[in-house]
Amino acid sequence: MRRIADRLVIAGVGLIGGSLAMALRARGAVGEVIGLGRSAENLRVARRRGIIDRAERDPERAARDADLVVVAVPVQTIAPVVSSLMRALPPTAVITDAGSVKSSVVAAVERILGDTAGRFCGSHPIAGTEHSGAVAAVPDLLEGRRCVLTPGPRTTAATRRRVHALWEAAGMRVEEMPAATHDRIFALVSHLPHVAAFALVNAVADVDQQGTRRALAYAAGGFKDWTRIAASSPEMWRDICLANREELLRAIDGFSAALERIRDAVGLGDAAAIAAELARAQVTRRRLGTAPPPPAVRLRARRGARRSRGR
Amino acid sequence: MRRIADRLVIAGVGLIGGSLAMALRARGAVGEVIGLGRSAENLRVARRRGIIDRAERDPERAARDADLVVVAVPVQTIAPVVSSLMRALPPTAVITDAGSVKSSVVAAVERILGDTAGRFCGSHPIAGTEHSGAVAAVPDLLEGRRCVLTPGPRTTAATRRRVHALWEAAGMRVEEMPAATHDRIFALVSHLPHVAAFALVNAVADVDQQGTRRALAYAAGGFKDWTRIAASSPEMWRDICLANREELLRAIDGFSAALERIRDAVGLGDAAAIAAELARAQVTRRRLGTAPPPPAVRLRARRGARRSRGR
Repeated sequence: MRRIADRLVIAGVGLIGGSLAMALRARGAVGEVIGLGRSAENLRVARRRGIIDRAERDPERAARDADLVVVAVPVQTIAPVVSSLMRALPPTAVITDAGSVKSSVVAAVERILGDTAGRFCGSHPIAGTEHSGAVAAVPDLLEGRRCVLTPGPRTTAATRRRVHALWEAAGMRVEEMPAATHDRIFALVSHLPHVAAFALVNAVADVDQQGTRRALAYAAGGFKDWTRIAASSPEMWRDICLANREELLRAIDGFSAALERIRDAVGLGDAAAIAAELARAQVTRRRLGTAPPPPAVRLRARRGARRSRGR
Repeated sequence: MRRIADRLVIAGVGLIGGSLAMALRARGAVGEVIGLGRSAENLRVARRRGIIDRAERDPERAARDADLVVVAVPVQTIAPVVSSLMRALPPTAVITDAGSVKSSVVAAVERILGDTAGRFCGSHPIAGTEHSGAVAAVPDLLEGRRCVLTPGPRTTAATRRRVHALWEAAGMRVEEMPAATHDRIFALVSHLPHVAAFALVNAVADVDQQGTRRALAYAAGGFKDWTRIAASSPEMWRDICLANREELLRAIDGFSAALERIRDAVGLGDAAAIAAELARAQVTRRRLGTAPPPPAVRLRARRGARRSRGR
């Protein structure tokens, strides 16, 4: 495996940053790995697990002599972290991020980099679990998953190549698209489903508070599956909502319209119209196939847990 | 194990009816099991798998000498099937169903039974998978799951006892509640999430048709989890929507209001309001814990498939 960096800085040694470092190290693709973070405890875990060689809480010390930087922090913090690294970062060092929103993040980072924005290329490695922190990192988290790069008009060809090589070295399938396209797609297939899951849980809790207080006790397999994501970090999702606001609003409105069509058909007792809406969804959904299980589920499965789905 | 029936009729030897028969037979809780159905092929599968002793496509022949009947057919068909059995069914035979909507089903069955409605008690065994038919039946599907009985004012104490004993013999945890309460709860925790999943898939397909045609290609873990149920039978869900129309409309409206609250907060860029809505959902959802995996997922897990969750 070709070495993709002699000195790699991972800013934010969480699930993504930590798993990336583990994958690169396992393949001998990096020299020294420096972990930058605010939490001394998380950095300690990262060092203890052999994820990083050196822990830094000071951005300038971390940036010195680095040749590649991955900013794997919450979307609202990416630009400020890049800013904090700039004073000490060598001019040849390439920078990328791991944010799940791109247009606003890329714009903010490019404003900070000014004339040197050619050294930056936005990335979104599409992976994760509901767990977080260095403690949750695993070397195969990114393996075989997609990573979307959103190079801007100023990103140099050399930067693109470096960032491609970075994620490919971690086993990812890398592709490129404009940041705006990325944000429209992920508003639909990721941000909207999260918002809808949060709303669904709240709707049930609202009714329980008004009266019966019993519905949640009957939340079985299906409900749990599709609201599992509502247990995700509210802060992270608040930031994603704000960072991808326009596209998310558009996605919510499209969803509300689709819901309203079914509601109207049910309200009218129009069996044919209900069936038409549901059948259209079924055909579309079946094309997607079944998702493989999350790691937590695999663990339980091995322990022989069983389940069936409530209707 | 006490024998709960000498001659049990399962009308509809599908996933639920077939699994029930298998569980009862495995425990020696029944004498003869007669399978009633319209599909000769499904009945053949049921006989070949040893789920039933005898297959009947004629309701009167099936009903003769039966002492317990479980009508495990789609909700819109329950009352017609009960009606078709009545001419030949001994007056001492007890009847229950397995429908996931109760008020309208119980009312329709009681209208048919008239003076003999005391022999009927509605049931909703809360179990299932996305698969169907006798081919999908497994002896432990119902094991440890909840079964809600909705006895009406006319249901006799003897009927209740028989129906309790039936589901308990299959390993279920049986409880009772009014049919109206059942329907309100399941509109929220089951019917609404299904409708929302169908609408979510349609919303993404709508955008793909308008332009990019790419979003669905990025539908990863979270989206797939959420919308797996949108691959369910449109006919079954159309019937459930219609059978539980009033409560479903109420549930959709509550969900729309909860979604609108998040949408408004995002539209205003009100970080505190967004966080408050999401945090409320997180707290509620975390109380529910994690759902064990569906059987299909367990199979793949054993084959070592891996997954992580897209954001």
